[in-house]
Amino acid sequence: MTNVTDQDRVLIFDTTLRDGEQSPGATMTHDEKLEIAELLDEMGVDIIEAGFPIASEGDFKAVSEIAERSKNSRICGLARANFADIDRCWEAVKHAGKNRIHTFIGTSPLHRAIPNLTQDEMAEKIHETVSHARNLCENVQWSPMDATRTEWDYLCRVIEIAIKAGATTINIPDTVGYTAPMESADLIKRLIETVPGADEVVFATHCHNDLGMATANSLAAVAGGARQIECTINGLGERAGNTALEEVVMALRTRNDIMPWNTGIDTTKIMHISRRVATVSGFNVQFNKAIVGKNAFAHESGIHQDGMLKNRENFEIMRPEDIGLSGTSLPLGKHSGRAALRDKLETLGYEVGDNQLKDIFVRFKDLADRKKEVFDDDLIALMTLDDEDDHLQLVSMKVTCGTGGQAESTVELEVDGKDTIATEHGDGPVDATFKAIRAIFPNKAHLQLYQVHAVTAGTDAQATVSVRLEEDGMIATGQSANTDTVVASAKAYLHALNRLIVRREKTGPGADAREISYKDLT
Amino acid sequence: MTNVTDQDRVLIFDTTLRDGEQSPGATMTHDEKLEIAELLDEMGVDIIEAGFPIASEGDFKAVSEIAERSKNSRICGLARANFADIDRCWEAVKHAGKNRIHTFIGTSPLHRAIPNLTQDEMAEKIHETVSHARNLCENVQWSPMDATRTEWDYLCRVIEIAIKAGATTINIPDTVGYTAPMESADLIKRLIETVPGADEVVFATHCHNDLGMATANSLAAVAGGARQIECTINGLGERAGNTALEEVVMALRTRNDIMPWNTGIDTTKIMHISRRVATVSGFNVQFNKAIVGKNAFAHESGIHQDGMLKNRENFEIMRPEDIGLSGTSLPLGKHSGRAALRDKLETLGYEVGDNQLKDIFVRFKDLADRKKEVFDDDLIALMTLDDEDDHLQLVSMKVTCGTGGQAESTVELEVDGKDTIATEHGDGPVDATFKAIRAIFPNKAHLQLYQVHAVTAGTDAQATVSVRLEEDGMIATGQSANTDTVVASAKAYLHALNRLIVRREKTGPGADAREISYKDLT
Repeated sequence: MTNVTDQDRVLIFDTTLRDGEQSPGATMTHDEKLEIAELLDEMGVDIIEAGFPIASEGDFKAVSEIAERSKNSRICGLARANFADIDRCWEAVKHAGKNRIHTFIGTSPLHRAIPNLTQDEMAEKIHETVSHARNLCENVQWSPMDATRTEWDYLCRVIEIAIKAGATTINIPDTVGYTAPMESADLIKRLIETVPGADEVVFATHCHNDLGMATANSLAAVAGGARQIECTINGLGERAGNTALEEVVMALRTRNDIMPWNTGIDTTKIMHISRRVATVSGFNVQFNKAIVGKNAFAHESGIHQDGMLKNRENFEIMRPEDIGLSGTSLPLGKHSGRAALRDKLETLGYEVGDNQLKDIFVRFKDLADRKKEVFDDDLIALMTLDDEDDHLQLVSMKVTCGTGGQAESTVELEVDGKDTIATEHGDGPVDATFKAIRAIFPNKAHLQLYQVHAVTAGTDAQATVSVRLEEDGMIATGQSANTDTVVASAKAYLHALNRLIVRREKTGPGADAREISYKDLT
Repeated sequence: MTNVTDQDRVLIFDTTLRDGEQSPGATMTHDEKLEIAELLDEMGVDIIEAGFPIASEGDFKAVSEIAERSKNSRICGLARANFADIDRCWEAVKHAGKNRIHTFIGTSPLHRAIPNLTQDEMAEKIHETVSHARNLCENVQWSPMDATRTEWDYLCRVIEIAIKAGATTINIPDTVGYTAPMESADLIKRLIETVPGADEVVFATHCHNDLGMATANSLAAVAGGARQIECTINGLGERAGNTALEEVVMALRTRNDIMPWNTGIDTTKIMHISRRVATVSGFNVQFNKAIVGKNAFAHESGIHQDGMLKNRENFEIMRPEDIGLSGTSLPLGKHSGRAALRDKLETLGYEVGDNQLKDIFVRFKDLADRKKEVFDDDLIALMTLDDEDDHLQLVSMKVTCGTGGQAESTVELEVDGKDTIATEHGDGPVDATFKAIRAIFPNKAHLQLYQVHAVTAGTDAQATVSVRLEEDGMIATGQSANTDTVVASAKAYLHALNRLIVRREKTGPGADAREISYKDLT
């Protein structure tokens, strides 16, 4: 089998679950990873980098399960340049119908100095590790980290070695995000022209957005000959993030006249996965974010914009429906039935079974009783709730707050079936409520993030609250939506606590924290 | 006087207050515009586009007052291609030490068809209006809207006419944001090579971020010969926004090795103005936004990143302090004195007089009593409060909410000196509170936006609430920070209401709404 594709086809390699998830604070739970992987698979992502299997037990399990469940996407895991990493990676990805081992090493003088290897010694190491990976897996990606600071001749030499050892994809990362488009195009072009065997493999580009040019750099690399773009949903990732999948995909589609390359992405799935990644990572998308921002398709004058674009034959026009934003959709109300709800959920990208629909319908009715109109965003908030087997459940709560002194909160929880009540005071209703929960269920989880969004306009809007807790290196995020902000806060906090408890039980303290960073040099 | 600058100097033209402010929902008050203009002036922006003077009385007043107060920046106003617009623009900008009239017209067949002008008739109109502007002001910018769809020969012809009529800057806008870097560079380069007199004027680039490439397009245009970049703070603007000032400025600085052009921007002012624009516009910056995102300088491993960059001689390294992010700063506490508070405020970019410091110190002490540690972000939230002469003031409030039925809120307001109390029920504490306020002070303002941020971590974090109200086309935004979310919500709502009242009194109903959009074709 060969990895070489049609010359006008650009492979989309999504690393939301590896490079994106490792951005400080964006940690996802196991179930969230499975859900995002499923959405990536459904939208037509060619390769999903699902994690770094040797980093932790949790990473290994996530990559294994994603591999087992994969349908069309190739599932990839990351491995440093040693046999243990590569073996562990293979153990995780081997269950997939299509799999890949992605192994990397820093090739610049600085990186050679740390393990104290000569050029020849590192070349030998590359040969050995890539050969080992290829013996396990027919599809191997190799990345020379810090490629741009590696001596040109040596860079060409090690890429040639990797190709000869069986690498099918060569990825050129712009690790610090300082590259400009001309450089990005030029580097790939020169490598392909220079390295023997370069025409037998796919070159990939992996950009970061530190100077705001990741999208342009990725597309320039494609113009230079790259045929795989590494990217993440919403540009999630460390610092200013990775290349945003939605931007490169929509740019290729919209400007196919001057960038005649295609992807296999079903763009109508973009908006839904963007929302899910924003929710589970706690990384909101700004209003003026390209493609997926709330305002991206909001014009002061829609007609005028349409006039601007009409008869424009040079390029495709981006329409809201192209990314799965339904146009003018009527809100549901308390008289809407089950079929209307199911239809609406389907247009929003949720396919629900009959039992699930029954549950959701109950919550929908409850909401519709309190709100005149239930908008798309209200339903999306409703769908973010999940039904884990909860240790802690909110029975009731009553909060008094205001300007006259401290807030008071009385919370009644069912803890593993037993009711307990506590009343606490605090700085504001949320602080008092969280204190009451801690009085009932003592824990030393640290609150890392507390966010509230009103999901729709109006004073009776639902508030979605996100809470991120950290305990002994384990991180759990909880969400809840309610028209009462304080109740939503309590439920989100309990949601996060329940998840921490589950993880604690499954893995023992600290066990699920990432133990190895891919940046720990070999 | 000539407008031509050193060949390695790129002028920064900021249009946060014109193209940015016109993005749906980003409306700023008069005072906010003055504050942002002052910050732009202080940071070394060459030209500030302060508004569109004929659009409304409010726009005219803002541009006039910004012109009067300007120190070093050139103040520019927008005008369509007619004498009334240009005269009104001049009336507003003439007070500035340095001023500019920016006039524009759509030059493509589509745009010529609407006023039903032949090529010759439009050419004559351009000659007349630019000449008229130049007779008033020695510094005139002209933009052919929809340039990329204008017949090439005609585009060259009208640019030549504008130059001959006295335009000193020619701006080429990418109105729909679909341009790619190569096109952007090529268009400017060809125009400069082709149009007689092009070497006597400055060419400007004005990009939008619809495909995520505004920064790369702007820099490509500079490589093609443009010497003015039009941009906004945080990339604020319609749809996916304009080119972000902070990205082009930091890219030019960081990669001066391959982009040997300089700006006059004091980059250490970037972070402060970014925060202010985010606050007053209600457009938050996402964590993974380049340069100014919360995570832009957050590395999983700071030491490693430093190692990655050390000895890298090709480019400047971006450091947090370069954009005015103080490094590891110690939080203040309840024992911190007035001098420590002033010092800290200065490092955060706030210069406060003695009287203002006294007020802030009282609020700081109040906060420090409730919070163990007062972080930089807490102080920034504290500083966002302003002291307008308020018609409505919160005397006290008491809220009860929870799971057992509707929330109840009792609010006591002082309305023009008279105390009134109301109790209302609602869906959640915020809804009940807003209802109680409306019971005391009936109004038909529509809630467009309700946002809550916890400004620091911890359950005793201050929440900053933003509320945007709309009434008869007038928009007002209110903010408040408090450890009690519900109290902050009430105060933010009152803040916005007070602003609406002030605007209503000043201008009569509807008068301050923008009556003319720059997109209403001539």
